[in-house]
Amino acid sequence: MTAVAPPGGITVVPVRGLPEVSAGDDLAGMLAEAAIAAGLADGDCLVVTQKVVSKAEGRVVALDEADVAARRRLIEGESVRVLRRRGDLLITETSHGFVCANAGIDVSNMPDGTVALLPLDPDRSARRLRDVLRGRGVDVAVVITDTFGRPWRQGLCDVAIGVAGLRAVVDLRGTHDTSGRSLAVTEMAVADEVAGAAELVMGKAASVPAAIVRGLDPAWFGPGSARDLVRPPSEDLFR
Amino acid sequence: MTAVAPPGGITVVPVRGLPEVSAGDDLAGMLAEAAIAAGLADGDCLVVTQKVVSKAEGRVVALDEADVAARRRLIEGESVRVLRRRGDLLITETSHGFVCANAGIDVSNMPDGTVALLPLDPDRSARRLRDVLRGRGVDVAVVITDTFGRPWRQGLCDVAIGVAGLRAVVDLRGTHDTSGRSLAVTEMAVADEVAGAAELVMGKAASVPAAIVRGLDPAWFGPGSARDLVRPPSEDLFR
Repeated sequence: MTAVAPPGGITVVPVRGLPEVSAGDDLAGMLAEAAIAAGLADGDCLVVTQKVVSKAEGRVVALDEADVAARRRLIEGESVRVLRRRGDLLITETSHGFVCANAGIDVSNMPDGTVALLPLDPDRSARRLRDVLRGRGVDVAVVITDTFGRPWRQGLCDVAIGVAGLRAVVDLRGTHDTSGRSLAVTEMAVADEVAGAAELVMGKAASVPAAIVRGLDPAWFGPGSARDLVRPPSEDLFR
Repeated sequence: MTAVAPPGGITVVPVRGLPEVSAGDDLAGMLAEAAIAAGLADGDCLVVTQKVVSKAEGRVVALDEADVAARRRLIEGESVRVLRRRGDLLITETSHGFVCANAGIDVSNMPDGTVALLPLDPDRSARRLRDVLRGRGVDVAVVITDTFGRPWRQGLCDVAIGVAGLRAVVDLRGTHDTSGRSLAVTEMAVADEVAGAAELVMGKAASVPAAIVRGLDPAWFGPGSARDLVRPPSEDLFR
């Protein structure tokens, strides 16, 4: 790839050519190779879907989807709290603090009779991948994404569940707007917007497990964690 | 702009050079000129922030921010329902069906003592802009965006509040994943992901009111409305 982000703009490029991933695979090495082949360069952000991370980390379990009780036990085991139930659907808070459907357990693109659980520590997975890439001479941020629903709005969006080297939420409070007034609320969830942008090229069925986002504001790079995207329950009006 | 989206990828480019916008201005004409100068081409999606639309449509009212009662009356007047109150913050459902803080009323980048309300019909605003651009020989989709918070997650994201020429939610249900199973839930909120991607280049204080998104899947173009992004209250577990 020789894609150059236009002045002030960004480009998002799919990373293809990753072999099928199984438990114990050196995912960081495989991703590094595919992403560098796709042109990954210093200052980029590499976005990776949760599913390949879960597969490589062995977060795959057998589940007979018809066994409703087993399914419920599995979801509850991955959750610290159930917020809502309706039929088969549970909205729960995972051990990471994420609120999502069915604890993020995923049946798509999985062998029959198996499901993928969320990585135990997606921030750590992101850091590991970032470190491997640095070892190969490429200094980038890494975002691991999953597909979440949300209240009030139809349709799913990809969001960040693991972050390394990127400030997940960029606090522009105190920045002055063009009229000179300070902005009251401008904490942008940059990592989530990056995740959504990457999803536009990764699709759901196209076997593209990663994307390169180029042209992000250099000021956004730095220590970051997906935990910064979790609203403390005490500040949350809907928990 | 000569930016070409890389194969399978997208580019997002800021649109600059828009004069200050006031009530009654021919925003569609001004935006068309600036966007075409920035390289807008057939098959692109033009993303425009709500604020310039509200200004041009005269959706600006005087408000003394210190007058708490007046502020509350204004928010309630723009709302059909109040979901939550905490201190100054009201989470309401607007007449459009959007659930957001303070009915989307916006004080940033506004002259002192004034605030911007949401456009009365942002889909219509998007259609009008799309029609003007078609009249100038450029066939694009248009998305009008605003910055919304969300439960459970820190930080704001831009989302679509007006859509023309783009399917706001793309239903991939029935599409088969790589293992041949049909995907259970894959309605992606494409217009919201496009809005978030555009925000990455528009920023909050950079006076960039629009962006060009190039390289979206041609299958996503077609009749669309931001109403498709509103989850019917009867299906909503958090309303």
